[in-house]
Amino acid sequence: MDEIKLIQIKEEILTDNDRAARELRRKLTENKTFLVNLMSSPGAGKTTLLLQTAAVMKQTYKTGVIEADIDSMVDAEKIREAGVESVQLRTGGFCHLDSLMVKQGLEALGSDTFDLVFIENVGNLVCPAEFDTGAIKNVMILSVPEGDDKPLKYPLMFSTCDVLIVNKTDMLSLTDFDMDRLRGHISRLNPTMKIFEVSAKTGQGIPQWTEWLKGELSAFLT
Amino acid sequence: MDEIKLIQIKEEILTDNDRAARELRRKLTENKTFLVNLMSSPGAGKTTLLLQTAAVMKQTYKTGVIEADIDSMVDAEKIREAGVESVQLRTGGFCHLDSLMVKQGLEALGSDTFDLVFIENVGNLVCPAEFDTGAIKNVMILSVPEGDDKPLKYPLMFSTCDVLIVNKTDMLSLTDFDMDRLRGHISRLNPTMKIFEVSAKTGQGIPQWTEWLKGELSAFLT
Repeated sequence: MDEIKLIQIKEEILTDNDRAARELRRKLTENKTFLVNLMSSPGAGKTTLLLQTAAVMKQTYKTGVIEADIDSMVDAEKIREAGVESVQLRTGGFCHLDSLMVKQGLEALGSDTFDLVFIENVGNLVCPAEFDTGAIKNVMILSVPEGDDKPLKYPLMFSTCDVLIVNKTDMLSLTDFDMDRLRGHISRLNPTMKIFEVSAKTGQGIPQWTEWLKGELSAFLT
Repeated sequence: MDEIKLIQIKEEILTDNDRAARELRRKLTENKTFLVNLMSSPGAGKTTLLLQTAAVMKQTYKTGVIEADIDSMVDAEKIREAGVESVQLRTGGFCHLDSLMVKQGLEALGSDTFDLVFIENVGNLVCPAEFDTGAIKNVMILSVPEGDDKPLKYPLMFSTCDVLIVNKTDMLSLTDFDMDRLRGHISRLNPTMKIFEVSAKTGQGIPQWTEWLKGELSAFLT
């Protein structure tokens, strides 16, 4: 058998979005609205984590959610039922959010009066990593069943984010997921990345994550 | 609280790719090469399923694999170690494969002499659904931990594929995944979709899936 052949395919990068995102971040900083962009694969548990997180944060801060979904409003409805204000961006096939879409979402929400807004990005580990949304912090969720090798395969996502939440830790015993191996990959790709081990289902680890978030938020607001 | 606001964002569709894909499919049919496009979220188990499937199929058919990966050659190496010829398409950030990339992969593999070629597409439930690769059959994997609601959120992927493989059934008891609810969503979206319940880890369900594939292949080759 021959050696594995390798074909490189070039990438296009949109710099207009970067400019608009920087401008949006500047305005958010001025208005004291802390925008958190939450990204993950489909089914990693973004909505469940968001529900748990918002339940804690809204006790202290005015909290809102911008939901992105390709073709449904399921998530926004769940969020609203939990008493958190939300808008739904129905992306109609788009694979990511860009800063213009997020800006529209913030305007629809009336974000000026909010301390904290979460974006639940499209479930996708590829495209959302390339588009700066203007968020103050980028947070990704990796769920245990996806495997500890994902930083090798989606390096841009793992490099871009400030925080990694390892979710579904209640499933650890059923898989060969190795937390040390994951931490090894991360330490090479993004050594300053903050890592939280969480089970959004059982609530384990949520206090550590929300305490950290409160610390960031209080520094941002003062 | 106001009603949830909804903002529609338009989609662009590339028809050039569709034309090239049709032409590629015509040639594959003429050359008797059965091309299967395998799609899923990151971590749903594409590579493990592919290893199990190729191990069975290569006993009867000359089988090859085109691996797409953003930035690693991990999967192609695993496939080669299992004695299956493979080429690696390193997409350099691309979120999907199109028919031109697949054509390059087929040429690099020397697909004319192959009966069966699998494409392992980029781990992504959004973009790959929009790009016809020229494959004869489109197969998707949904893993149990992702949840039974995914057809509501990624309807194009579930509508486009001929086959759904529900993987990681060994994790069913740990989740609230409801197979009947999933089948209900599918029957509304894509009633002719063929569904296999599989655990690529334990091997459960692999015979049913590979028997079906052999039937399709034998009809195609005669």
